[in-house]
Amino acid sequence: MDGSTPHVGAASPATAGRHALHDDPYATRDARPTRLVPRLDPVLHGARGSAEPGPLARQQLEALDRDGFLVLPALLPSRDVADLLAALAALRDGATGGAKDGVIRERGTDEVRSIFAVHRREDALGRIARDPRIAGIARQVLGAPLYVHQSRVNLKPGFVGRAFAWHSDFETWHAEDGMPRMRALSASILLGDNHAWNGPLMLVPGSHRTFVSCPEPTPARHFERSLVEQTVGIPSHDAVRALFDAAGRRIELATGPAGTVVLFDCNTLHASGSNLSPCPRSNVFLVYNALENRLRAPYAAPEPRPDFLATRDPDPIA
Amino acid sequence: MDGSTPHVGAASPATAGRHALHDDPYATRDARPTRLVPRLDPVLHGARGSAEPGPLARQQLEALDRDGFLVLPALLPSRDVADLLAALAALRDGATGGAKDGVIRERGTDEVRSIFAVHRREDALGRIARDPRIAGIARQVLGAPLYVHQSRVNLKPGFVGRAFAWHSDFETWHAEDGMPRMRALSASILLGDNHAWNGPLMLVPGSHRTFVSCPEPTPARHFERSLVEQTVGIPSHDAVRALFDAAGRRIELATGPAGTVVLFDCNTLHASGSNLSPCPRSNVFLVYNALENRLRAPYAAPEPRPDFLATRDPDPIA
Repeated sequence: MDGSTPHVGAASPATAGRHALHDDPYATRDARPTRLVPRLDPVLHGARGSAEPGPLARQQLEALDRDGFLVLPALLPSRDVADLLAALAALRDGATGGAKDGVIRERGTDEVRSIFAVHRREDALGRIARDPRIAGIARQVLGAPLYVHQSRVNLKPGFVGRAFAWHSDFETWHAEDGMPRMRALSASILLGDNHAWNGPLMLVPGSHRTFVSCPEPTPARHFERSLVEQTVGIPSHDAVRALFDAAGRRIELATGPAGTVVLFDCNTLHASGSNLSPCPRSNVFLVYNALENRLRAPYAAPEPRPDFLATRDPDPIA
Repeated sequence: MDGSTPHVGAASPATAGRHALHDDPYATRDARPTRLVPRLDPVLHGARGSAEPGPLARQQLEALDRDGFLVLPALLPSRDVADLLAALAALRDGATGGAKDGVIRERGTDEVRSIFAVHRREDALGRIARDPRIAGIARQVLGAPLYVHQSRVNLKPGFVGRAFAWHSDFETWHAEDGMPRMRALSASILLGDNHAWNGPLMLVPGSHRTFVSCPEPTPARHFERSLVEQTVGIPSHDAVRALFDAAGRRIELATGPAGTVVLFDCNTLHASGSNLSPCPRSNVFLVYNALENRLRAPYAAPEPRPDFLATRDPDPIA
């Protein structure tokens, strides 16, 4: 952390009064030492034991509840993958601008790393966000009407694709976007074969049961840096080790052929290694949030992030 | 490449005359475009079809010949691993100095990345280098009396262990150390469990059959940088892609429990990803070279590397 950067914590004038500290079970970035807090929210919101129908079988729901993630191999047929890849190529080739426009490039190169807010498009990328094969699962898990909180394509090109450090998405969405509780589900659609050797998603089973606070306050305009390489809002090595030990010293890789969909809870600890292979590892990343869990003011940031990162004007989809 | 850095190529005054270009089937770092050259040397030097006995079975020799590597799961029992780990811990804790002394640290931290020349020690690390369980295999493969060209321990600590880019060791040993031909075998002894998720060795099967030249001349005192992060002497992306495609778009991970020994030919294209996990991935790395393949003057470097990186006064061991 650069000592000269202005920081604003949870109790700063910008956010004080909106969320008093004692109201927030998931307080973070408050300059206090790391705390491991048991999750207060369910993972399956009304789906278990309820009559609500949905695409996932009971065993799949149980696995998601237990592990915090679920891999659905080749859920989408190759025709859909081809449509998504074509839309992705058109989007990438036409991409201009930088982080302010939702176009993130790999550090030190011109290669596109991520493009945000693809769910608002009219092409295959926009359609897949509303597709009942995936949104229907999210509805089943979240047990309520929902909307897309965030969406993006990650390109992770061959050779130069850099790692993502261990983190919980919810910690950032809570601190920087004002997402109140854990009632969001992420879906990553793999657009190419994901092998152990091209930087697949790595997850710590069961880690979604613990909220890990991060000590460092959020710098102003943090997202401009954090989307390239995150340094604030990532748990300490000791915290990662504790969750890893609790998982039986186990990390799972979400591998599978193109068209595989990886579902994971908003608080599951995950990371991905660098991609040294020649094979790109592109994917579409969709985050569904329950409408009743819609954003408030940030819990621990000086200002909300731009709309392309965090939807503040929800458009219900299921 | 920094244009202001002094470079000396193969035909520079420092090396011209010792190795005329037309004498060298493996010319490299000569400012010419990348060339893919078929290997001239065998992989098994007299072992196949000969009566020479050795620890490897015929099928294992064939696999090494075909793929360029061979994984021997849990070759060493846990008692040996414990002895090696104890010797490694004592060595690391007493390590002082920097690259000039054979102690390489992770960039931006104090963590030890590698310590060289462990085969000269009197402890378990020195003994394992001469142990017939491993040296006997090298003797069988190389078909001649041999010595340790290079040895080191790699610590690859959890969280901060950085990647090694794709490379052939032989390219560097030829260019910078003056190793004439491909008649060396590497053995990596895994001192902890190697999983797909803690940065294991990655290899391209069959890549040892092709020598890939590298265009950029060797900077002076290159080793001081290359051991932390190599940028000269690594093949182009196109060359890596060509070998990857020739392998059927396949990369193999050398995983296994502690005590596993990974053998690989001196020219096998390999890399390893970052280690984001909490588990260190330490190993002992031993390179055996045939005595008759001992070093000459560097083929493409202004001066030989220090003795801790490349033995010039061989001590035969098998």
